Amino acid sequence: MRAIVVERGESQPRVVDVERPSAGENEVLVRTLRVGIDGTDHEVVGGSHGGYPEGADYQILGHEAVGVVEEATGTDLEAGQLVVPTVRRPPDGQSNEYFDRGEPDMAPAGAYVERGIDGAHGYMAEYFTSAPEFLVPVPDELAETGFLVEPISNAEKALDLADASRSTFEWSPESAFVLGNGPLGLLTLALIEQRDVDRTYGLGRRDRPDPTVDIIERFGATYVDSRETPVDEVPDVHEPMDLVFEATGYAKHAYETIDALAPNGVGALLGIPEPLAFEIDGGRLHRDFVLENKALVGSVNSHVPHFEAATETLLACPDWFTEALITDVYDPGDVEAAFEDGDDRIKTVVEFDAP
Amino acid sequence: MRAIVVERGESQPRVVDVERPSAGENEVLVRTLRVGIDGTDHEVVGGSHGGYPEGADYQILGHEAVGVVEEATGTDLEAGQLVVPTVRRPPDGQSNEYFDRGEPDMAPAGAYVERGIDGAHGYMAEYFTSAPEFLVPVPDELAETGFLVEPISNAEKALDLADASRSTFEWSPESAFVLGNGPLGLLTLALIEQRDVDRTYGLGRRDRPDPTVDIIERFGATYVDSRETPVDEVPDVHEPMDLVFEATGYAKHAYETIDALAPNGVGALLGIPEPLAFEIDGGRLHRDFVLENKALVGSVNSHVPHFEAATETLLACPDWFTEALITDVYDPGDVEAAFEDGDDRIKTVVEFDAP
Repeated sequence: MRAIVVERGESQPRVVDVERPSAGENEVLVRTLRVGIDGTDHEVVGGSHGGYPEGADYQILGHEAVGVVEEATGTDLEAGQLVVPTVRRPPDGQSNEYFDRGEPDMAPAGAYVERGIDGAHGYMAEYFTSAPEFLVPVPDELAETGFLVEPISNAEKALDLADASRSTFEWSPESAFVLGNGPLGLLTLALIEQRDVDRTYGLGRRDRPDPTVDIIERFGATYVDSRETPVDEVPDVHEPMDLVFEATGYAKHAYETIDALAPNGVGALLGIPEPLAFEIDGGRLHRDFVLENKALVGSVNSHVPHFEAATETLLACPDWFTEALITDVYDPGDVEAAFEDGDDRIKTVVEFDAP
Repeated sequence: MRAIVVERGESQPRVVDVERPSAGENEVLVRTLRVGIDGTDHEVVGGSHGGYPEGADYQILGHEAVGVVEEATGTDLEAGQLVVPTVRRPPDGQSNEYFDRGEPDMAPAGAYVERGIDGAHGYMAEYFTSAPEFLVPVPDELAETGFLVEPISNAEKALDLADASRSTFEWSPESAFVLGNGPLGLLTLALIEQRDVDRTYGLGRRDRPDPTVDIIERFGATYVDSRETPVDEVPDVHEPMDLVFEATGYAKHAYETIDALAPNGVGALLGIPEPLAFEIDGGRLHRDFVLENKALVGSVNSHVPHFEAATETLLACPDWFTEALITDVYDPGDVEAAFEDGDDRIKTVVEFDAP
């Protein structure tokens, strides 16, 4: 079967022919429909994040997938059922306390592998296998968009952590600010738009006309161009923010978020930055953080409950949004083009089989 | 009656004779027993924090008090009842949404005054008045130590926020690290020692023999000398910390806390720093913060439920601890000596009336 892989020593993905996997005991064989590409995939290809499966000289890419159960192998799933796979798995097939209690997203390094990212093959292949507990059933109407459940699930988890951090007092955010107009930023904005938040803002650094700015504004959110209004000046130019999501992975934004927050506000950090040293007004930021009861939560990965919440969120997204978001659909044979970047594309997906 | 005040234009506290206050309608007159001195009092005296009551040319100091109800004035309190006053009050006697829902500690600047600190007279006087809802009854056995309820309540609130931020997953901290061996740090350590935390650590920068190091070690905690082991090296030298309390107000510690935390750990920031700019390894810290699901919560002030929790905590503290902590008891006439600093003193209290 065809699979999109990165090989050791290479820095470009390519299509290879690999053996179709067989479902072992208590494993399900899934026929892949679509697999999304995100920034992490580019990092894996470039070698700055993740790692190869033990002993393998290539890694099958892809962690945002939707597929159809081909062989249910006696599990509770049924052939023909649409499913979305989660990302983390126990290392060496051994479970551990984090997986036992359904919280692999809280496992520390060494207690998990990540399919398509770190130490395990991903989903960019015509078929993949998985234990059934890592496959989340989704309705048939998500056959084309279901690969978005995984990135939305990361925002769901971050929002859960942010909400929990404010749960000791009455807190209903009236203003929310998403840093980043990439797919994760736009999906996070779509999630927040489904909450009762009065005013929303989206940060980018693009000139109009731009398809991401169009999406931000079609949601009724205010587009903030960081070239004109740095994050820490947003309270003066617009308003202090009750909730900030950092989805760019630009290191300075984490600290500017403290300034952007309203009293009692919370910043959820999802983007993963590269190392970068810089000077900050550390005392003043720390002082404001304390005197105004602010909070920051870091959030990585997600698990089944977040995938289930993300499925509901995706079902409630307007059609115009997913149509505008998914700009490019490629056959696996066009892998080179699929991994190119461009200002006119937002979300690219590789289609292994038509829904 | 005698009161300890700071006068406009002065930078030393002194004893003056002021009119004894009268309890208005729905107000209670309290006879002051003891009032503690903390770092905030020194900042108020020095003019770097807080401000005078509107129209007043002096401010009565003190916000950590315990006293006896002298006139209950038809309220639910009874004469002779031991009480501890909270700190925040509505500005201009008007209530607002934060006070209405019992969360004045979450009020933003402008929506509160703070007795003894900012815009309202404090408790360092023979008598003070208060609305009864801001007086927390405490058992008679706390007549000598009850002024510690207020600082403990700040740690209780910070701990509540920290716990809440980790409430979406299974989290039971096994290691906790208190930065600071001042009274707030030691009281926070006493609070944590009452929880089921396996290993505790306390940070200071003092040579042995030292009374604060003695307290840390008598609790069974490990003393960490920051001159030998910087906060960000603690995971290598000791272990990563599930819970960190920053109680020094030294600005760099807030950022070093991110390094000190274990995966899924939380840092509670209580200390209030001065402005200070410095370089940080901002990208790496931000990255670890995200990839390890870390959190930071800022926490200021506290309210009635935290005072009630602090009362229970204080009652459960061993006698040796409060005896070692309260090193100096002064008559109001010795105000100059009471406000002096010294390595041999930990907590100083001004006694207006013997319990």
